[in-house]
Amino acid sequence: MLAPSFPTFLGAENSTDPASVKTPYALLGIPYGPSYEAWELSAAAGGADMVRAAAVAHAYTRFLTHWNFDIGEPQFEDGKPNVTDLGNIVGNVRDPECIVTDAAAVLGPLVKAGVVPVVIGGMDSVPPMLVAPFEGQEDINVLQIDAHIDFRDEINGRRDGFSSPMRRLRDYACVRDLVQVGARAIGSARRQEVEAALKAGNRIVTAWDVYENGAKSIAESLDLSRRWVVSLDCDGMDPSVAPGVGAIEPGGLTFMQTGALLNHLARNNRLAGIVFTEYQPARDVGDATAHVIVRLILNILGLQRNPQAVPVQR
Amino acid sequence: MLAPSFPTFLGAENSTDPASVKTPYALLGIPYGPSYEAWELSAAAGGADMVRAAAVAHAYTRFLTHWNFDIGEPQFEDGKPNVTDLGNIVGNVRDPECIVTDAAAVLGPLVKAGVVPVVIGGMDSVPPMLVAPFEGQEDINVLQIDAHIDFRDEINGRRDGFSSPMRRLRDYACVRDLVQVGARAIGSARRQEVEAALKAGNRIVTAWDVYENGAKSIAESLDLSRRWVVSLDCDGMDPSVAPGVGAIEPGGLTFMQTGALLNHLARNNRLAGIVFTEYQPARDVGDATAHVIVRLILNILGLQRNPQAVPVQR
Amino acid sequence: MLAPSFPTFLGAENSTDPASVKTPYALLGIPYGPSYEAWELSAAAGGADMVRAAAVAHAYTRFLTHWNFDIGEPQFEDGKPNVTDLGNIVGNVRDPECIVTDAAAVLGPLVKAGVVPVVIGGMDSVPPMLVAPFEGQEDINVLQIDAHIDFRDEINGRRDGFSSPMRRLRDYACVRDLVQVGARAIGSARRQEVEAALKAGNRIVTAWDVYENGAKSIAESLDLSRRWVVSLDCDGMDPSVAPGVGAIEPGGLTFMQTGALLNHLARNNRLAGIVFTEYQPARDVGDATAHVIVRLILNILGLQRNPQAVPVQR
Amino acid sequence: MLAPSFPTFLGAENSTDPASVKTPYALLGIPYGPSYEAWELSAAAGGADMVRAAAVAHAYTRFLTHWNFDIGEPQFEDGKPNVTDLGNIVGNVRDPECIVTDAAAVLGPLVKAGVVPVVIGGMDSVPPMLVAPFEGQEDINVLQIDAHIDFRDEINGRRDGFSSPMRRLRDYACVRDLVQVGARAIGSARRQEVEAALKAGNRIVTAWDVYENGAKSIAESLDLSRRWVVSLDCDGMDPSVAPGVGAIEPGGLTFMQTGALLNHLARNNRLAGIVFTEYQPARDVGDATAHVIVRLILNILGLQRNPQAVPVQR
Amino acid sequence: MLAPSFPTFLGAENSTDPASVKTPYALLGIPYGPSYEAWELSAAAGGADMVRAAAVAHAYTRFLTHWNFDIGEPQFEDGKPNVTDLGNIVGNVRDPECIVTDAAAVLGPLVKAGVVPVVIGGMDSVPPMLVAPFEGQEDINVLQIDAHIDFRDEINGRRDGFSSPMRRLRDYACVRDLVQVGARAIGSARRQEVEAALKAGNRIVTAWDVYENGAKSIAESLDLSRRWVVSLDCDGMDPSVAPGVGAIEPGGLTFMQTGALLNHLARNNRLAGIVFTEYQPARDVGDATAHVIVRLILNILGLQRNPQAVPVQR
Amino acid sequence: MLAPSFPTFLGAENSTDPASVKTPYALLGIPYGPSYEAWELSAAAGGADMVRAAAVAHAYTRFLTHWNFDIGEPQFEDGKPNVTDLGNIVGNVRDPECIVTDAAAVLGPLVKAGVVPVVIGGMDSVPPMLVAPFEGQEDINVLQIDAHIDFRDEINGRRDGFSSPMRRLRDYACVRDLVQVGARAIGSARRQEVEAALKAGNRIVTAWDVYENGAKSIAESLDLSRRWVVSLDCDGMDPSVAPGVGAIEPGGLTFMQTGALLNHLARNNRLAGIVFTEYQPARDVGDATAHVIVRLILNILGLQRNPQAVPVQR
Repeated sequence: MLAPSFPTFLGAENSTDPASVKTPYALLGIPYGPSYEAWELSAAAGGADMVRAAAVAHAYTRFLTHWNFDIGEPQFEDGKPNVTDLGNIVGNVRDPECIVTDAAAVLGPLVKAGVVPVVIGGMDSVPPMLVAPFEGQEDINVLQIDAHIDFRDEINGRRDGFSSPMRRLRDYACVRDLVQVGARAIGSARRQEVEAALKAGNRIVTAWDVYENGAKSIAESLDLSRRWVVSLDCDGMDPSVAPGVGAIEPGGLTFMQTGALLNHLARNNRLAGIVFTEYQPARDVGDATAHVIVRLILNILGLQRNPQAVPVQR
Repeated sequence: MLAPSFPTFLGAENSTDPASVKTPYALLGIPYGPSYEAWELSAAAGGADMVRAAAVAHAYTRFLTHWNFDIGEPQFEDGKPNVTDLGNIVGNVRDPECIVTDAAAVLGPLVKAGVVPVVIGGMDSVPPMLVAPFEGQEDINVLQIDAHIDFRDEINGRRDGFSSPMRRLRDYACVRDLVQVGARAIGSARRQEVEAALKAGNRIVTAWDVYENGAKSIAESLDLSRRWVVSLDCDGMDPSVAPGVGAIEPGGLTFMQTGALLNHLARNNRLAGIVFTEYQPARDVGDATAHVIVRLILNILGLQRNPQAVPVQR
Repeated sequence: MLAPSFPTFLGAENSTDPASVKTPYALLGIPYGPSYEAWELSAAAGGADMVRAAAVAHAYTRFLTHWNFDIGEPQFEDGKPNVTDLGNIVGNVRDPECIVTDAAAVLGPLVKAGVVPVVIGGMDSVPPMLVAPFEGQEDINVLQIDAHIDFRDEINGRRDGFSSPMRRLRDYACVRDLVQVGARAIGSARRQEVEAALKAGNRIVTAWDVYENGAKSIAESLDLSRRWVVSLDCDGMDPSVAPGVGAIEPGGLTFMQTGALLNHLARNNRLAGIVFTEYQPARDVGDATAHVIVRLILNILGLQRNPQAVPVQR
Repeated sequence: MLAPSFPTFLGAENSTDPASVKTPYALLGIPYGPSYEAWELSAAAGGADMVRAAAVAHAYTRFLTHWNFDIGEPQFEDGKPNVTDLGNIVGNVRDPECIVTDAAAVLGPLVKAGVVPVVIGGMDSVPPMLVAPFEGQEDINVLQIDAHIDFRDEINGRRDGFSSPMRRLRDYACVRDLVQVGARAIGSARRQEVEAALKAGNRIVTAWDVYENGAKSIAESLDLSRRWVVSLDCDGMDPSVAPGVGAIEPGGLTFMQTGALLNHLARNNRLAGIVFTEYQPARDVGDATAHVIVRLILNILGLQRNPQAVPVQR
Repeated sequence: MLAPSFPTFLGAENSTDPASVKTPYALLGIPYGPSYEAWELSAAAGGADMVRAAAVAHAYTRFLTHWNFDIGEPQFEDGKPNVTDLGNIVGNVRDPECIVTDAAAVLGPLVKAGVVPVVIGGMDSVPPMLVAPFEGQEDINVLQIDAHIDFRDEINGRRDGFSSPMRRLRDYACVRDLVQVGARAIGSARRQEVEAALKAGNRIVTAWDVYENGAKSIAESLDLSRRWVVSLDCDGMDPSVAPGVGAIEPGGLTFMQTGALLNHLARNNRLAGIVFTEYQPARDVGDATAHVIVRLILNILGLQRNPQAVPVQR
Repeated sequence: MLAPSFPTFLGAENSTDPASVKTPYALLGIPYGPSYEAWELSAAAGGADMVRAAAVAHAYTRFLTHWNFDIGEPQFEDGKPNVTDLGNIVGNVRDPECIVTDAAAVLGPLVKAGVVPVVIGGMDSVPPMLVAPFEGQEDINVLQIDAHIDFRDEINGRRDGFSSPMRRLRDYACVRDLVQVGARAIGSARRQEVEAALKAGNRIVTAWDVYENGAKSIAESLDLSRRWVVSLDCDGMDPSVAPGVGAIEPGGLTFMQTGALLNHLARNNRLAGIVFTEYQPARDVGDATAHVIVRLILNILGLQRNPQAVPVQR
């Protein structure tokens, strides 16, 4: 069900038993999920391992005790990452749905234990797997960073595949605020999806809004009474930052804008989990996108070293 | 004289008879124009067809009825683009000047009928072809976005080729305001060209000014009493946005800055025509530049669906 | 000791005798310096010649008399660059340290004569060579633009190699303010280096600070009572601007931010010297990084044509 | 079940009804087949369409009536290709095995009617689909060109997936000679597979044998009393010829060697069908591999214009 | 009319006066010729200068006195190339035909004086310019190496452009044997062109013939009673050798096969001139094609140092 | 002195004690050697590790027990490679010569113990390090495969650097036959070097000879009364096979020709050692060159499993 990876992320301890995790964060690769087109099964499958490799290549794994100027202190002064690497869920191409069960078996215990999952997808079908374990456990908000709102109720007969994840999240009563940041250009959404999203109470912050008002003001507008699950589709960022995606779309969030949003939640201990989706290694330029993912995670781990220590209101 | 293209832009109706255009916009490829160096004849010749192909490749043609988050509504909810594709003017390498006559024969009827031409060049010699039909018809302003001011009176014995288009525009009495945005670094202009431009009443807004003051404030400073012809040399944008140009120059306008200028004119129904020049497909990275051009046009078409409905003061 | 280069930078007069320089600026290539790893000896060695070639390729050398819109006047209206090209110091792979003596023999007379050196490295070991001649001659401030603070006292047994240059600068009493701009992510610095830097009076301005407050406000905060030596490690800039470096790090300074800092010092006649380091031609994309270096130098030369004319307080 | 493609191969007539084919050849895309790893489902899926596009891009579709110097006469002097394009079988990622049934429904009628199928895979699981319809219909020989002998009885629990196709062919009594050309280096075969292949009567001709003895002598050694199905795994060719494969292996067959084998069978009217496998567009350089496939097919179609006219002994 | 180039080929003496050439060979760039499509005017225009640059880049210019193992002796033991560099003919895009007159004015005196011209095109329209001066002066044979036979009488109304050069050569009575080597695949020739070529007495040696019989036997079959003009269209060579062409076609001549043909003529003092066509720098990979051209020329110059010393029968 | 590498070559046992090697072959990386230019110190330094990585990437390490069709039997049927990986000699950039002493300390015991060294350089200065231990131990022949004869007595004052290794080998009395295969074009050799090589008894087999006569006949002409040290400069192979070299030179040995020479010596148990030089990872295309090196070594190890078992005449 879980296959260990080598190297582990940041050289962290690894484990294939979610119940054994003692660190506040746990990293997990989910290679894919239900889909209706073949390329979705494999396009992003190797993403988690590429992210692990990039952490080695850019020397972060080697410099763990060093100062991180993004956070204003050493990354891990004792050299011990506050994350456990659970490896990757083993997929079964003849039964893509079974990955949902497997993900639940891993993420459920983590969420129950107060461990913050850091998931590397996988495509659009992965975010609901991260949200599911919170149902009945804790009300959460969701911050989606994406070029698209992904609010289709079904596409090609499937309700759990491409372009649907945010719609599926609304099937969970635990999801309260749903803030969608970075939308731009034309995607899968039609008038009915935009109206459904607004009716569901979602807040849509286009990329134009981010550039006009600044990422900081958006970050500061987020309700901090509940913790947030972040769903970061890599095409939410600008192609000059994260080229390794299926469909580039100019005008996306810069590295600094993306970091401002994530770091705000981490600093305030309001991060319940994060999932990176649609990182497609074959389309990356160098390993720029993997590099960016590593650094965003490093900042979270360093800005909030012990997230579960603070009580969350239910 | 006009050769139809396949696919058409956005799958729009095509026509080779400018008099038959019933839509408010018409797209036209002008492969080149008078020049003094051989490469100018072919460098940008395939640009219009690449732009058409990019609209297919990035799924815009397929998603025409979908929501465009840049404009805040569906692109074409009925699936009918408000543009006719006139194909490309057929060039004759032995008589580059004849393209001027041909362009006049196509653009003249369009302008007279109140259709807004969307022209894909071609190099520096194309913008005057778009302005010519307004002479004696309607006073206009011109917004040039370019790394260079293109105000040479002649180069190598030619007055209608490279680096001269803005100077040539000043030969037309119908041209009133001429705002030149994005100038930076060293180009073909010498002291005498800068002085001539200022003396002619041109306003030069350097790229530094854009970054300092914001594209929005520049957009808002534009006189809206007359309609504007936009001449967008792709090197006016930053190489990270539009790499497919002859000479990249760092520090150019971002996608958001460029869009802010164009969308302001479209929103206010002050766009009389637009010409994209110097897009050189062979130098593009992927089809990034073609993609950007498509999206800028989509925004215009969607923000101002029926431009000729509003009377313009003559 | 000095080998002439062809072409010279901007077609400037060349000389291999520093005492003969009559122009206010002198350009010098220092291919490398002391190091502890082999690749450091060669990675940046060809940088100066690539910069010279880029000035030809981008037509700056041909357009010397033309208007530079970055500075608001012609670059050199008489066609005579105010810089002498001293070529490159000849290295000796069997005695990397001797390059220090050679650099002193070239830079000493320049600084004494009031000529502003423009040095193209070379790696981290080069900046101290530029600062050394000021010792006992003139108190200076140092502006470092870099992704890293380079304040290690030693690495692998060497105190004059990689990651140490800013620490070495503090060995010179003539160095007063040391402002370090652009730090981000995890590099060679540990807690002890950050504390040592702050204790030494350095001011650390992270890349996040630059994006938050603007390059202009940082430029205006610089003390102008003393002249500045600028040490520009190319990885201080964003990879989308300057990809030709050993280790890219997203979130760096844009071209406009970098230019704002340098141009401020040049405009105010407060530039005592500048050194570009870590430009590695083999990793460049096109010659984007060389192009950026050329343009930054052009702006300095044009904004302050006669730097030594104004008295500096000692 | 069958989806039509646009453009069709060589601009041929298209049809989605195999029973309606009136031409001696029929082209069919089979995107994938049973597999045990996700990437196998999508890696080669777009191959058939890329082959169709390459025929346009290299002007073959436009020059159909022109002379083909590979065959010594015009390709199709009347401009009518002797092939029907059946489009692609529509896959179902949730039921990869159903493609086997679909392929049988298309290929069965073709083989029965004496039409020669030209199949573009798809991966290793496709060749048995082409051979199946001959069972009980006609005894055939099989020529495999491949870097690997693909004679595993099972891998990861599957007997119809990767590395198994030639073993599966031996399940059909209609398969008589099985000549395996191009084997080199280390692949999936172990001693037991080599021994099983030899015991089954297969003839293994390594790439070294081809270079030593010449493709011509190998061609001439083929038994012509029965027709041949050719299974051409693109990695059988040298990476300098066909780089678009999953695992390049130097020392493969040149274009001329590959052509010599195929053309010999076509010239002698001994070709019963051909399937190209493992062409992976994303790994191609330019469209070199697609180009090679087009040209190999053109030669077959031109060298043997009416294959079914000659009786085959059963 | 003639513009000098820098650097010159191999650092040879340069001249813009053909009458002044004292060396047995003269190098000349002809950027283009009459054409009917714009890209033909510029695609190969920079070829001659790229060839000159490649001779520097690959150190041949620096190693002139060194041993050339292709020829079995030092290239130029005295360091003096036996070739004069005449630079390039200056084109006029508004009058492409005038290049024919200019070429005649340069090549005429050369041929009359017994100097062997080495021409770098330019596209298909260039070879007739090299043959013209022999008319009435000396009967010659022509060896064409090309993927295509280029025997169209007209295309798009022009008889002196693309695909026509070998047909035009047959307009000259001085052309006796015309051997066409390397034809393969489908090009511009139809049945009528092949029949016309054979009727004209041309000998067509397909690429298949070259691989079957060896370049050596073809070389030895060439009639040596007359001198030969070689017309080498770079697409005659295999794309793995010369990728810098408009339309790659696998199965072309290898470097060794091409060299065997050219060197045979040079060794036997039967080379009257050579023209390289269709080298398109923008499509080259690295400068592989330029490199190959340099080396083929080096071999000719070294194998036959004083070609005019031996009398030719008229 | 020796630093272990991970992964090891083929997953072989590793050791940093040459005296402990129990396998018939030992692999060793020598990153560089004495040199006179900085880039030589680092250009090939990472070659050995890239070769180790390529063995993993191309699945050879995973398929060790599988059949190798190049040798006609399983590679290592028991899964145990007959080679020990000694890692890499640790260089010291301040004392490049000390690598010679270190290499002697590793290679001496190996040669004395009859272990066959497989060395991955490093540049031209490495081959003499492999030959030195044979002096006084065993007379050997040397087969050099290289585009150049490397017979300069000195360059830039050094006698042990670039272009000199074959000259240096002649300083050893143990070197008897020295066969130089693959020479072509112009390199560092002048008339005096060619004459010196021939006078020393070297046999020069140009690339033209290889293509003319076949690699097999050259292999069979090698004297088998003594064992051979092979010095394979990667530029001896054709750029289409081994692009990862400093200076590509078309017309080099194919993979099959190179293999024919090496395999002949291995098959006949006449291989005393082999060194690969000038493999420069940064110039490789993919890891094609590393891949080729791996496969050439695999063939040697498999064709001669126990080389020291057969007595060699001294």
